[in-house]
Amino acid sequence: MRKGLFISFEGLDGAGKTTQLQLLHHWLEQRGVDFLRTREPGGTPLGVEIRRLLLERADLHVTPLAEAFLFQADRAQHFATVIVPALDAGKLVLTDRCFDSSMVYQGAARGLGTDLIRRLSLLAMGGRVPDLTILLDLDPAKVHSRTAEGKDRAHRTHFDQAEEAFHRTLRSAFLALAQAHPERIKVIDASLPPDVVHAHIIALIEPLLQQNEG
Amino acid sequence: MRKGLFISFEGLDGAGKTTQLQLLHHWLEQRGVDFLRTREPGGTPLGVEIRRLLLERADLHVTPLAEAFLFQADRAQHFATVIVPALDAGKLVLTDRCFDSSMVYQGAARGLGTDLIRRLSLLAMGGRVPDLTILLDLDPAKVHSRTAEGKDRAHRTHFDQAEEAFHRTLRSAFLALAQAHPERIKVIDASLPPDVVHAHIIALIEPLLQQNEG
Repeated sequence: MRKGLFISFEGLDGAGKTTQLQLLHHWLEQRGVDFLRTREPGGTPLGVEIRRLLLERADLHVTPLAEAFLFQADRAQHFATVIVPALDAGKLVLTDRCFDSSMVYQGAARGLGTDLIRRLSLLAMGGRVPDLTILLDLDPAKVHSRTAEGKDRAHRTHFDQAEEAFHRTLRSAFLALAQAHPERIKVIDASLPPDVVHAHIIALIEPLLQQNEG
Repeated sequence: MRKGLFISFEGLDGAGKTTQLQLLHHWLEQRGVDFLRTREPGGTPLGVEIRRLLLERADLHVTPLAEAFLFQADRAQHFATVIVPALDAGKLVLTDRCFDSSMVYQGAARGLGTDLIRRLSLLAMGGRVPDLTILLDLDPAKVHSRTAEGKDRAHRTHFDQAEEAFHRTLRSAFLALAQAHPERIKVIDASLPPDVVHAHIIALIEPLLQQNEG
């Protein structure tokens, strides 16, 4: 039997991952559960450097394939030095994004193909896939209204519309993964109030925690 | 027929790659040949950042697999934005190290396996393997005497001996690649005087240049 419990949080930026991880963080602390909260990219000192190259250096014009390899370098370091040791110690590990994001962003949206990204990811992870993936699903139009608040819908720019189309591609790819892996990936409607989403998450995690502790 | 001419230089540090590239550089300039001289890692702005992470940040404790992915990110960016466009323009491209180094360092010496590194490299290169690879072959004991000049052989440290053993592994792996790909990889005895090594290199390159120009 595999030790530890490994849970990833996925979804579009703006779907509420940070809020829900924070609510879960407090819930776990109150129950005295020993857990590790991490993220991709950026869960190691190397990952912080890679994250900076990926997110803050548009001047580098990173190609989709180079980007995919950088995410896998971050992941390989993250799994070998952070995630697997914590799981081996029996801990609960929560990660803000994992390989499903790579399959959606690099595989589907950037056109490298989900098969290729899955093979590279499994190599980087040493085969250690999350036990549970919580997909916070939100209509991109609502993500947009959250991230561009106050902008009159009639005054949306061409860029806004292209961005929304991009987000629709991402959402479809996330939902396709959830359909392909219904045992692992659980979809939660992120348009519900945060406390209701939190309750759904607890309902998924609590039984797994009891199994892991037992 | 493939356009351009793509030549990589391989060998241990200290085997004389930089010296020979410089001699070839002058020879090509004198003949008015349009060429591009580059290197891995570090042949692009992204590559310079990756090279810095790989060579100057021992504090990051990069794992062998993360290291392998970083080299491939450098390579993917290098091929897509520098090497392939130059070859498509019919140029001669000279690179100081390419995927054979990854197979030798990450595949053989770091234990990831040359098959894995070959597959990742072919992906990063889009299948565009060098037309000619010049392997400057040198006995590691001589590399050592070049890089640690003045150190009395009787006073060599345990570190020196471990380093020499590591270099022997690298050399064997390079020679095994040359045996497996005799059409592409040409071995030159790098213990010969630099002008003799240069003459050997010109003898290999000149006919290819005439074909490429013709």
